[in-house]
Amino acid sequence: MAKDKKLVEEITSMEEDFTKWYTDVVKKAELMDYSSVKGCMIFKPNGYAIWENIQRLLDERFKETGVQNVYLPMFIPESLLQKEKDHVEGFAPEVAWVTHGGMEKLQERLCVRPTSETLFCDLYSNIVQSYRDLPKLYNQWCSVVRWEKTTRPFLRSSEFLWQEGHTAHATEEEAEERTIRMLNVYADFCEQVLAIPMVKGKKTDKEKFAGAKSTYTIEALMHDGKALQSGTSHNFGDGFAKAFGIQYTDKENKLQYVHQTSWGVSTRLIGALIMVHGDDSGLCLPPLVAPVQVTVIPIQQAKDGVLDKANEIVDSLKAEKIRTNIDDSDKSPGWKFSEAEMRGVPLRVEIGPKDIEAGNCVIVRRDTREKTICPISDVASKVKELMGIMQSDMLAKAKAHLESHISDAHNYEEFKDAVENKPGFIRAMWCGDEECELKIKEDTTATSRCMPFEQESIDDKCVCCGKPAKKLVFWGKAY
Amino acid sequence: MAKDKKLVEEITSMEEDFTKWYTDVVKKAELMDYSSVKGCMIFKPNGYAIWENIQRLLDERFKETGVQNVYLPMFIPESLLQKEKDHVEGFAPEVAWVTHGGMEKLQERLCVRPTSETLFCDLYSNIVQSYRDLPKLYNQWCSVVRWEKTTRPFLRSSEFLWQEGHTAHATEEEAEERTIRMLNVYADFCEQVLAIPMVKGKKTDKEKFAGAKSTYTIEALMHDGKALQSGTSHNFGDGFAKAFGIQYTDKENKLQYVHQTSWGVSTRLIGALIMVHGDDSGLCLPPLVAPVQVTVIPIQQAKDGVLDKANEIVDSLKAEKIRTNIDDSDKSPGWKFSEAEMRGVPLRVEIGPKDIEAGNCVIVRRDTREKTICPISDVASKVKELMGIMQSDMLAKAKAHLESHISDAHNYEEFKDAVENKPGFIRAMWCGDEECELKIKEDTTATSRCMPFEQESIDDKCVCCGKPAKKLVFWGKAY
Repeated sequence: MAKDKKLVEEITSMEEDFTKWYTDVVKKAELMDYSSVKGCMIFKPNGYAIWENIQRLLDERFKETGVQNVYLPMFIPESLLQKEKDHVEGFAPEVAWVTHGGMEKLQERLCVRPTSETLFCDLYSNIVQSYRDLPKLYNQWCSVVRWEKTTRPFLRSSEFLWQEGHTAHATEEEAEERTIRMLNVYADFCEQVLAIPMVKGKKTDKEKFAGAKSTYTIEALMHDGKALQSGTSHNFGDGFAKAFGIQYTDKENKLQYVHQTSWGVSTRLIGALIMVHGDDSGLCLPPLVAPVQVTVIPIQQAKDGVLDKANEIVDSLKAEKIRTNIDDSDKSPGWKFSEAEMRGVPLRVEIGPKDIEAGNCVIVRRDTREKTICPISDVASKVKELMGIMQSDMLAKAKAHLESHISDAHNYEEFKDAVENKPGFIRAMWCGDEECELKIKEDTTATSRCMPFEQESIDDKCVCCGKPAKKLVFWGKAY
Repeated sequence: MAKDKKLVEEITSMEEDFTKWYTDVVKKAELMDYSSVKGCMIFKPNGYAIWENIQRLLDERFKETGVQNVYLPMFIPESLLQKEKDHVEGFAPEVAWVTHGGMEKLQERLCVRPTSETLFCDLYSNIVQSYRDLPKLYNQWCSVVRWEKTTRPFLRSSEFLWQEGHTAHATEEEAEERTIRMLNVYADFCEQVLAIPMVKGKKTDKEKFAGAKSTYTIEALMHDGKALQSGTSHNFGDGFAKAFGIQYTDKENKLQYVHQTSWGVSTRLIGALIMVHGDDSGLCLPPLVAPVQVTVIPIQQAKDGVLDKANEIVDSLKAEKIRTNIDDSDKSPGWKFSEAEMRGVPLRVEIGPKDIEAGNCVIVRRDTREKTICPISDVASKVKELMGIMQSDMLAKAKAHLESHISDAHNYEEFKDAVENKPGFIRAMWCGDEECELKIKEDTTATSRCMPFEQESIDDKCVCCGKPAKKLVFWGKAY
């Protein structure tokens, strides 16, 4: 027990060292672990269960828009990867190559998929013939590999879990509509389920996906004021279709190229959950995505009737499909509280002899520590009510944090000052020239996060070069 | 439309050529497709949706026994794979090797996991210290790679989808209990959900898993009388624990090795569904696992009110959480019937102007073609009733097929005759000697499928060599 106690106490304060705090939470909440395989991580039960909830709830939303799930091979022949020029240039430097199968050397190298555009294109070129075959709205949940030198749990690793949607459409308009629609599915999901508000916009050409005509992004702001690209949606136009020969005959019996999109989110979202909602006691999970929503902790559990009553409460919560567990281990109540807090369990229910005598229990919120005394017979309805309030309070808090961490810069001095002294997004005008993006990055390490959908002109001139401004851009340091 | 019609008609009869029938069904029901990657398949929406149902329903059953899901890396360093001698010998000849990451040659080759015992052992050696840490009951859903020369959809491919459970226990008894428990979870799932009865038993030493102390199996019988190994559960004893140094301190503070198990089922189960329940019209899916449980087919849909009424029926079924779609395409009703049959949709609901006038619709079962006339207002309850009946009728039919395809052989002549002329399992006594297994395989191509849990003595002598018999064995040709 002494050892356990120490584990809880050992967490670094987030104001002191945010990076170390992050790693501590990941480790102490038992979300993830390093493996013997360089750059690859182990998703432990507490971490993987969050991903399962994200999968289930996001997958429902995909299917509501007509998307179907498929599974394509994890290997891509080198010749297939090379078919689209920009795409191969973007990905070839960071893929893992399989050269031998069993005892034999392969005739052609295979890369482990870093993303599957090429395989989906190959499939579509075989199964799309007529306008009747369109649209194709496929998605897969899988792992992908991008050879990384540095590793950071959930944010950067050589192998990670994600979903990749790939669609093919008859027209340009339809493809653009699907690109934006899926971006909105992501943004709504993040707001409503993860309680994380997003800035939505378009990536600059420099930051767009290898092979895309345009890339849209959702960007979240972490507690330390850094941005996290949390999901992207790409419109490919007919570029891939031309490279892979994906053609259909339209209603007038003319051959046309399809227009395509792809879109993905990954286990990075778990990193966002940690860095947006966590505090010095550990993880804090929004109820909708929490693997355990309520932990029941008996007080003086050796006393007659306490465990029975605690288990009654567990049963009444489970009967209402509330994800509940009980901590009836021989640890002290204080330690159990700390552990439930570290793991981010939204609500804990305390029940001891005095509570039982009064017919009550105590419900404590993870986010505010607010205590509610509640008649035992009402516990399920009270828990539901509190989870609803907590879900919206957490979003409101994250929104307030986002809004109070956006500053405007009208000239380069203001910009540099903001990067130094005002953690968060910087809104500033841009001439549209890649050189200014490069200079800004070199001078300040800030990058263009996106050109927000809601454009306005806060100045006439580019914040960097002073030439006429074309776009309002959100800039920031990013993970 | 002419082209579509042809597709449905083109299916080979199962009595004429079962192998070709199988491939035809896989293709025409759009379950799977070949890919540009040798040995790797594409799971198309209809096929993947079956796997999603299997995952969901099996995962629930795992979790009820305390299992937690995790995700471990897809790569295994060569040195880690080599730690357990039998294991590496069994798998090294059939793994894919990654030799390069990005532009660089790796210092150590990595294999793409063919199975993950070695990674789980590595993890357990790090996280198991005390008896308090036991048992560990982990599982992962993932894809694995075993380099295969020949490919057969769902049955054999270089990459396939599966789950692999890996557990660590304090005692030998507990490990054995878990091994058997998971085998029973599989067998019950196959019977109750897939409507496939299983023969349960132990593998001979020759057929057991590389590195296991004992392997248990569930064996199903396909329509053509061949066996399909459908799931296995392994007791490793402390062999892996010794190779990987997985030790814990017990209550007396003494160091002990853990005892381990692993167990898995794969997308082979979809192959079993096809070959147990299918017929010359295509796939026939048990309602519990069917992605679409009911297809509503409007008759004379251009007539006033038909489509409205059909959609009303769809809504009333969906409201009861019955997985329902409508075929309101411009194809003929006959073609729509064939297509729904090919895809194995358990029930179709026909609704036309005459039915509407009478206030009825027609429900047709996929397995028996039996028609039920049903008041439109009762359609949801009738559909539920018919799905229940169909689920148990399909199991009863499969059981009858299994039981009528088991024959006993008392001597080698009878045995060879049975392999030639009586498709199915052959029950025969065995001396326990691997030489007899090898001879039987060479002479007849039949292999030992399992030593059933319910042992009896049907003869004193080994069916092959005539020496004293030790075990009753189920033999058969197998996929």
